[in-house]
Parts: sequence; C-alpha cells; structure tokens
Amino acid sequence: MNSQTDVLERVLAKLDEGQGDALDRLFSFIAVESISTDPAYSEQCLDAAKLAAGYLEQAGFEAEVAPTTGHPMVLGKYRSKANEDGPHLLFYGHYDVQPVDPLSEWSRPPFAAEIIEDPLNGKVIHGRGSSDDKGQLLTFIEAARAWHEVTGDLPVNVTVLLEGEEECGSPSLDGFLEKRGQDVRADFALICDTLQWDKDTPAITSMLRGLAGVEINIEGPNRDLHSGMYGGPALNPIRALNKALAALYDDEGRVAVPGFYDNIAEPDPSMAAQWRSLDFDDKGFLADIGLTKPHGESSYHLLEQLWCRPTIEINGIWGGYIGPGQKTVIPSKANAKLSFRLVAGQQPEAILEAVQQFLRAQFDGDVKVSFSLPDGSPAVAFDLTKPHMDVARQALKDEFEREPVMLGCGGSIPIVEAFMSQLDMDCLLVGYALNDDCIHAPNEKYNLSSFQKGCRAFARMLSGFSDQDKASP
Amino acid sequence: MNSQTDVLERVLAKLDEGQGDALDRLFSFIAVESISTDPAYSEQCLDAAKLAAGYLEQAGFEAEVAPTTGHPMVLGKYRSKANEDGPHLLFYGHYDVQPVDPLSEWSRPPFAAEIIEDPLNGKVIHGRGSSDDKGQLLTFIEAARAWHEVTGDLPVNVTVLLEGEEECGSPSLDGFLEKRGQDVRADFALICDTLQWDKDTPAITSMLRGLAGVEINIEGPNRDLHSGMYGGPALNPIRALNKALAALYDDEGRVAVPGFYDNIAEPDPSMAAQWRSLDFDDKGFLADIGLTKPHGESSYHLLEQLWCRPTIEINGIWGGYIGPGQKTVIPSKANAKLSFRLVAGQQPEAILEAVQQFLRAQFDGDVKVSFSLPDGSPAVAFDLTKPHMDVARQALKDEFEREPVMLGCGGSIPIVEAFMSQLDMDCLLVGYALNDDCIHAPNEKYNLSSFQKGCRAFARMLSGFSDQDKASP
Repeated sequence: MNSQTDVLERVLAKLDEGQGDALDRLFSFIAVESISTDPAYSEQCLDAAKLAAGYLEQAGFEAEVAPTTGHPMVLGKYRSKANEDGPHLLFYGHYDVQPVDPLSEWSRPPFAAEIIEDPLNGKVIHGRGSSDDKGQLLTFIEAARAWHEVTGDLPVNVTVLLEGEEECGSPSLDGFLEKRGQDVRADFALICDTLQWDKDTPAITSMLRGLAGVEINIEGPNRDLHSGMYGGPALNPIRALNKALAALYDDEGRVAVPGFYDNIAEPDPSMAAQWRSLDFDDKGFLADIGLTKPHGESSYHLLEQLWCRPTIEINGIWGGYIGPGQKTVIPSKANAKLSFRLVAGQQPEAILEAVQQFLRAQFDGDVKVSFSLPDGSPAVAFDLTKPHMDVARQALKDEFEREPVMLGCGGSIPIVEAFMSQLDMDCLLVGYALNDDCIHAPNEKYNLSSFQKGCRAFARMLSGFSDQDKASP
Repeated sequence: MNSQTDVLERVLAKLDEGQGDALDRLFSFIAVESISTDPAYSEQCLDAAKLAAGYLEQAGFEAEVAPTTGHPMVLGKYRSKANEDGPHLLFYGHYDVQPVDPLSEWSRPPFAAEIIEDPLNGKVIHGRGSSDDKGQLLTFIEAARAWHEVTGDLPVNVTVLLEGEEECGSPSLDGFLEKRGQDVRADFALICDTLQWDKDTPAITSMLRGLAGVEINIEGPNRDLHSGMYGGPALNPIRALNKALAALYDDEGRVAVPGFYDNIAEPDPSMAAQWRSLDFDDKGFLADIGLTKPHGESSYHLLEQLWCRPTIEINGIWGGYIGPGQKTVIPSKANAKLSFRLVAGQQPEAILEAVQQFLRAQFDGDVKVSFSLPDGSPAVAFDLTKPHMDVARQALKDEFEREPVMLGCGGSIPIVEAFMSQLDMDCLLVGYALNDDCIHAPNEKYNLSSFQKGCRAFARMLSGFSDQDKASP
C-alpha cells in the first residue's frame, strides 16, 4: 500500500464515519425552500446559497456568494498546497429546486427530509432536492471535506460553481460567465447532475444530442375559402403540408433529406457493444409510454435511436378550423414546428439549410413557403481518451465494483453547452441519480447508497486526478 | 298569335309599364332592416314579413304571416280559377338579409336603395338585400302581380313560401315543414336564390354536390414526451397523421381511397360540352384567390372539378405545441377534420365508411385511431328531362336570347335538401344574381337588368307551366 492509497483509505473511512453528520447537512440544505422559479422564494434561494458557501468554507474553500442579475452563484476556490501546479477542476452543481405542486401528492412534507424504506431501492432520502441537485452536489463537497479533514489539504486545485437558477432556465448564467469566466475556468468541468445506469451500476454521460429547430409557414389561397365554392381546383395548404412533411421520412424510418446523415461519426465500437450488452428493458421503457416497439430507424437498437442517431420531430402542427364541430373551410395557411436532435458530425446550420431546401422543393409553385425561428446547437461527444475520463471510470469501477456505463443522452444539457462554448472547457458528467428519483415530481428521493457511494467515488476521483498529468486545456 | 301568347305579351307589357312602381316596392322592402341573425332586428323581420304578405295580397294571393319558433314564414296561396287542376308550384325565397358590418365600407347607406351607375354592369340597384334575396324573390311576385292585373287570375296554382331565417342557418325550417308541410307541398319547388352565368346569360342550377364529414383523432404515446428523452424510438402521432392524410391522394390529385369514385354518374354529355365551351375565365377565377392553376384532378376541367367531381378536403389539423416559440415535445395526440364534397352516385355512409377504413389501415398498431362526428348528405343532380325544366329553359332563352347555362354548384343548398328530404319535392333553381353582387358583403347590388328580365322570365315561366301537363309529384 503506497502512501497515496493509504491516504485515500483514510479519507473513505472518514466519509463512512461522518455519514450521519453529512446527512444532517443534507437535511438542513433540503430544508431551505430554494424554489428559483417563484419570486416568493428569493430569500430562501439566498439562504441556500449562504448555507452552501458555509459548507464550502468548512471544507477549506474560500467561498463567495456572487451576485448575478437573478439568484446568486456560489463560488468556491481551493488551491492545493501539495499540488499547486497540478490539475485544476471545476465542479458544477445547482442549489435551486423545482416547485412542489401538487403538494397533495407528496406522501410527507417535501422539505422535511428523512430516511425512509423504499421497496425497490432500500433506504432512500426523501425530500425536494434530495436528488436534484442538493444531494448530488453535496457528494462532492463531502468528498472534499473528508480529504481536507484527513490531510489538511486537497490533492488538486478545485473551483466550485453552484448555480441558483438551473430550474428556471439559467437566465443569468451567460452574463455571469461573461463577467466572471476567468474565475470559473479550469482544466475541465466535473458536472454532477446526471444519472447512474441503475441503482447498482454507475455511469458517465458521454454524449449529448444537439438540437435545432425551425417553424414552417405556408400559404396557399390568399384567403380562407368555402370548400363548396372552391373545393377541387383550390389548393389546400394542409394537404400540401402533410405531403411535404410525410416526405421527410422513408419507409424504414430514416430521414429522407439529402445530406442529413453526412459526416455522422458512428459511436465508439466498444461503447456501442456495451449498450447492446446491457440488459436494458426495451419493452418496459416502451410500455411505460404506451408503445410496443421502437419507431425510429429500424436498423438501430433502441438506445442507439435514442442516444446517437439524429431525428426530425414535428412538435406541432396547425391549420384551418380546429374548434368544435365542422367548418367547410379550405384554409389559406398551414404551419408546423419542427425540431431536430443532432449527433456529432452534424452542423446545425447545415442541417437547417438542408431541411428547408428539401421542404421548399416539395411544394407546388402556388404555395408560398417561409421559415421562421431557425436556431440550433450542435451535439457533443466527449473524448473518451482524456485522462480525467479514465480517472472517473476507474474510480466508479472501484467504488461500485461494476464497469460504469458510458451513457448517451437524447437531449442537450445547457450548462455543458455554456462551459464548452463560452469557456472552451471540456466536461465530465458523473451523477448518481436514478430514473425513479421523481425529480421535478412529487416524492423526490435519492438512494442512500447513491449519496454514500457518490461521496466515496468523488473522493477516489480527487485522488486519481492528482495522479494524472495536468489535463490539457 | 294564339290567345295564350297574346296574354303573355300583355303581361310583359304590364311589367314594363309598371317598372317604376315595382322598383318602389323593392326599395320599400329593402328599407326594412330585416337582419335575422341579430335579435335587435326582430321587429324589422316581422315588418318585412308583413310587407311581403301585403305584396302577395296585392297580387291576388291569400297571404299569412305564419309564426315559427323564430322569425315568421310568409305563406301565400293562389288557386288558379282557369287551371284549378293544373300544375301547382311552390315558390321559395327569403326576406331576411345579412348584417351590414363593416358599415364604413359601404359607399352609401345600405338600407336606402337607389339606382346607381356601375362601370361593369350599367344601372344597378344598390342596397342590402337588393340581390340576396329581396330583389330576387320580388321578381316572382311582380310576375304574378302582372298576370293577375292583366287576367284577374294566375295560369297555375301557386304557393309561396318566404323564409325569415335563411341567413342565420334556418333553425325553424325543419320544425315548420314538419308541422305545415301539407300547406307547403306542391308538384315542384321553384327556388330563386342562385346565379346567372354572367350579366347577359341566364342559368339553371342543375346539380349540387353533397357533403360528408368526419373528424379523426389519433393517439400515439400515452402522454406528451420530451423529444430529447424519447425522440427516435417514440412514435410521433403528427408524423403518423401526416403520412396517413398524404396517402388519401395520388400524384394526379385523385382520391386514392378504394371505392371513392364507384357509381359516379358522369355529367350529361351535352351539359359537359356546354361547360367546356363557355368562356369561363379560369385564370381570373384562380388569380382572385391567389393561385395560377387548378389543383384538382388533372384530367378534369376546372368547372368539372368544382361542380361534378367529388373531393376530400382537410378543413383543419392540430396537434402538439402551437404557441409562440419552440417546445421540444412529442405529443400524445394529433387530430384532423375532413370533409367530402359528394356527387351523384356517392352514398355518404359508404364514403364515410370507406375513408375511415382506408385511414385506419395507414396506421401502425401502436396508434389508437378514432373517428368522431361522421355525418353526411348526398349530392343532388336534377332530372333535366322534367317538363318544368324544359319550361324554365325555354322561358330564359326567350327572355335573354341566350341558351341558359346548366350550372353545377360546388356546395349544397339547405332549402333544396329540406324540400327533397322532408317533402319529397323536386326543385328547380333559377336565379338572376351575379358573382359580383357583393352578397354578404358591403355595397350589395342587383343589376337592374336582372330585376327586369327576372320578372319577365318568370312571367314567361308561369305561362309555360300552365301549358305543361300536371307535373308528376
């Protein structure tokens, strides 16, 4: 046993001993009703920020409750005495929580945290924010606290950024990063707001689909027409729109827009193999939403359809008379909202252009076609060969005694986009939440094992990061 | 010159002499603001009914203002002394008018009728109801009055029914016909609420398309889904609906539903030939609604597409998010309203069934499909060989010195449906309105020549009807 390993063992033991105190801190944190979307809870948001800053100070950080145009950020700084020139990581979490309506559906008060028995998960921590994201972010602070208590130091340089507006669309984030970016920037960001694979298996979220969207507005006749007086010769824009949108897909569920799949990087083969080997409950996933089979590209597995294949969705359509009863109108206009989930290799601008060009070509010359609100952000595929990725994988494997699943994520995560585009910072997404945590819903919970193993896995990562060479910026 | 012809000449001369008085009666009729849809004008509706009943009495009729659940009907009865066992015709018109909003767009007061010069039409009668339908219905009463003044009799038995709720959906009509049907029923109905072909060419409306409709409601996922979390494997019901609705048509604009065109009677060849020979302004008709070419079945002429070919129209479609901005939702549901213009030979029930069966077959088993509000009424093609049809054609030809156009009508006419289905009565549709009469719009007018020739043509028809054998019921 070398000395670094010895230190880690002492840190892990400290975490185990201090478990009761750590839970007390989490319970106190949950008790502060920091609902960011409701202005009535502004005071509570500030209180939660102050409490988190206090926890950071207790862990040896220099902490600041930093004002923004909205709820404050909490900034924590720690410069390692032993490893001042070593790696520098930014840890991100958020202290704000979702509203609790409908309150009547909670089995016990949302802000009075307690440990309860759950038939599927064993002991769980009940309470709003227990998982999203107070419990999650505290795993890191507790890991740092234990390191500091055992060694009087942290093994790497750490900045902590805790946001107070994640649940209300992060309106102040961009402005804050513009102003304080240099105080936030590190070698890479460790973000703790994501999922494990299941209650026993850890995960690293390794790719996020991007998003682009556009609205199509078409006009056929110059006014609404009576279908008796004009039906036959008059062009019906709903019919034209249906036909154009139907042409977006072929019979195998593939997008038929030329160039849509160009330059798409196939997923890392080992990751794809891992996905196919997972005992993912396809039937259960689909049954939960009322379906019996996957409806994406038929040549791809459900998880591939979800995580690493792009889509075109029609999010909304409207035209003509949509009130009660019948109206024999041939409308002048029809409209639809489209959005595209993008994967690595697809440029939002190019995809938006290709789709618009394809759609324009579907319409007769008597149709006026226009597009509005085109907008997009690219997909992210994290580099699995980065040293911090290896460290995280090993730490999770050591702690959970299972290989972590390299998850994909069908949606985008705004903070990742902000860190990558504004601060040019690589991201590492490790979290311990579960699909059944009821985040954003009544009866939110966090598995006690997630909290405990989360603290311990982050302690292992802090050790691992200190061993790696300074990560490339 | 036989004596019947001699009498007719005297009647026509009487009409010409009495033109000024006839116009005075029309102006007085227009002056009564009988807007049926607005309860504030109930008194005026009653006044208009009384005035019309008075005109009938002056023409020798026994007249009654008959109460209904809404505005009253005017009933007039004349039993011919000379031809008591001869034909019996029912004349139909309506004394109510459309509202006048927006008043600011009228060039002069809507209820102060006057003769003005119109660059395209020469002298026209300006005023609300001048065409629809006070001017039109008065042409018949004036013809009868002249007959009565000249001969002290009418050459045929005549019942007159003037409705006061045509412009507000005829809510009391069915109930009235149920109760008083035997007082209304005649050998055939002459309805004067339709168009000439152009200002110089008369017309008989010889076919009306029927109408059926149904709403389709589909459900894919059992709830609205986040397109990031589910996009790919999740079935999008808007996409499914687009595809199904697009399948309703083939590339030549024909309806692709099996059986849709079964049993369709092709139009009478001479009538079709007449249509094709008309100098109908296709380009102008289309340009008026912002189109450059007809979009119906490519193998049919525009007028055929409009009058004697059936259609499926999508009158409305809705699903997903249709507010401002973007929402990355995969909706649970999508819906559309469909209606069908039917032609002779198509049974509404069979068409509704065929379309529903066809649409059901377009959907994957994961889609729940339901239909609501199926309803329909068949098309009408009048028998061109009936004696009263010949009489009308000859009278119009004699008066206008042009062959009347046998028009189709793309929509249905509720009174025709009521007479045919409730009273099993054949209908003859002759009117003298023009497309540019601005009925239902500001600055309604009626060509003075329409009024004059209309009176004279009806005088000729009364003569012609008396010569024919008693029409078969």
